Amino acid sequence: MPQKIAFLGLGNLGTSIAESLINSGFELTVWNRTAAKAKPLVDLGAKSVTDPIDAVTAGGIVISVLADDAAVEEIFSIELIEKLGENGVHISMSTISPETSRRLSKIHENSGASYVAAPIFARPEAVKAGIGNISISGNQVAKDLVKPILQTFVKGIYDFGDDPGAANVVKLAGNFMIAASIEMMAEAFTMAEKNGISRQSIYDMLTQTLFAAPVFRNYGLTVAHHTYEPVAFGLPLGLKDINLTLKTASDSGVSMPIADLVKNRFVSAIAKGRDDLDWGALALGASDDAGLKGEYRH
Amino acid sequence: MPQKIAFLGLGNLGTSIAESLINSGFELTVWNRTAAKAKPLVDLGAKSVTDPIDAVTAGGIVISVLADDAAVEEIFSIELIEKLGENGVHISMSTISPETSRRLSKIHENSGASYVAAPIFARPEAVKAGIGNISISGNQVAKDLVKPILQTFVKGIYDFGDDPGAANVVKLAGNFMIAASIEMMAEAFTMAEKNGISRQSIYDMLTQTLFAAPVFRNYGLTVAHHTYEPVAFGLPLGLKDINLTLKTASDSGVSMPIADLVKNRFVSAIAKGRDDLDWGALALGASDDAGLKGEYRH
Repeated sequence: MPQKIAFLGLGNLGTSIAESLINSGFELTVWNRTAAKAKPLVDLGAKSVTDPIDAVTAGGIVISVLADDAAVEEIFSIELIEKLGENGVHISMSTISPETSRRLSKIHENSGASYVAAPIFARPEAVKAGIGNISISGNQVAKDLVKPILQTFVKGIYDFGDDPGAANVVKLAGNFMIAASIEMMAEAFTMAEKNGISRQSIYDMLTQTLFAAPVFRNYGLTVAHHTYEPVAFGLPLGLKDINLTLKTASDSGVSMPIADLVKNRFVSAIAKGRDDLDWGALALGASDDAGLKGEYRH
Repeated sequence: MPQKIAFLGLGNLGTSIAESLINSGFELTVWNRTAAKAKPLVDLGAKSVTDPIDAVTAGGIVISVLADDAAVEEIFSIELIEKLGENGVHISMSTISPETSRRLSKIHENSGASYVAAPIFARPEAVKAGIGNISISGNQVAKDLVKPILQTFVKGIYDFGDDPGAANVVKLAGNFMIAASIEMMAEAFTMAEKNGISRQSIYDMLTQTLFAAPVFRNYGLTVAHHTYEPVAFGLPLGLKDINLTLKTASDSGVSMPIADLVKNRFVSAIAKGRDDLDWGALALGASDDAGLKGEYRH
């Protein structure tokens, strides 16, 4: 260190990661579709470019934190990957399908570059606190090279082998389990509420005992009090991820009935105009179905 | 102390609790439908009776850990409750419906006795380790009287007020969430498995990070390796509990789609001849549906 990194994608999560890297002494060249988002990072010392290919250096490292499969495939054009070229490494942190990761990995290989799938389990505040976790997979040499960079801003890195799609499968499975946990709490808390028990009190017992884990403590409080703003991870992103989960499951011959059910909660929440809320708002479906209303603005 | 307690119901869980009480210095008079189950407790110093009414003393304390609503209603006859009488307290630890608790509470009141709902969240080994938890509700004076007894063998007691049904609602909600967690892991681990990722490795990551809670650590290991024996809580008991949850939800106007789905997993598991396995075996449904077989004996 200092080491140069090209950083593509400055949403809530990408911005937090880029900030952490700058704070750790890395020299960042950043790009975002909406250029204004680069401003706070430029103030911290990053360089900003208007074309993603200008961020990339031959044989260098590029990190991407992009919205979806289409964005990653569009931005990682053959041209950009050829510029990255021999010894170049792409750390792909977006939540995308394993299929896309596998395809991109081959394209990188063709140009002598390496593709490492490294999706992160963390909301922006968790990145700031250094408590995120990463599932990683892909070429072993490239993984060994990038782990020290990732370790500067996450708590744990879990290696799932050579298949570049494996880390994405794990990320999709984890996001599915978070969404399922939200729905599960929504159903349980609603049953409690309609039996005269406060949502907070059942939350307290369950999250201090059997369900004393971050997912239940954090999202449980959201579900108990229907606080779905500010948005850390929006409902439409939740729908995108559960659709990827179901596609991956279907492609590999797996039936996931809870995932189907949760997907329908997302579809319904968006249809009801809740698309500007955090994905925790899928929990409102159980309240709606129980004839409860008016607790939240929608 | 020493304090005398009548103890009715010596299944796996009841036996563990009775043992703990004896070890804490309480004098127990025990009863079980199958009398042979009393033997180990008699060896520890308990008295054993062949008619439950003979265990009860006027104005005394009686603890019940029975299989279901019907058993509690049958054994707690008007005759037995009248014998318990003025100042007598019944600590009802079975997982039964809130409706039954409310009805029994009134019958106790009519005889001057108190009914305290105190279902326990613990498998037998958790009772032995002193790490179980109890949700409690009912008459305040009676609750204050029995809490010191319960504290000798559990970690936490969570008070849900005067409604004798409230503690049962919380217990049913908690059991539902455990069953839903098993199904959720079954779906996620199966997707991982069919994508070439070992069930153990995804278990490791998720239970060390977002899902670092007892339910996921304990049942997750079971689900990862399909180890459904020895049985701590059998599949038929799981079905009984989820049916109580759905009845309670329906009676209070709550739709619980994940509970419906999990109920069907129990029904199917029993139909497939898995009724002699632990309720964690509901997880085999996801493997079956994905065309996986032969991992377990069924």
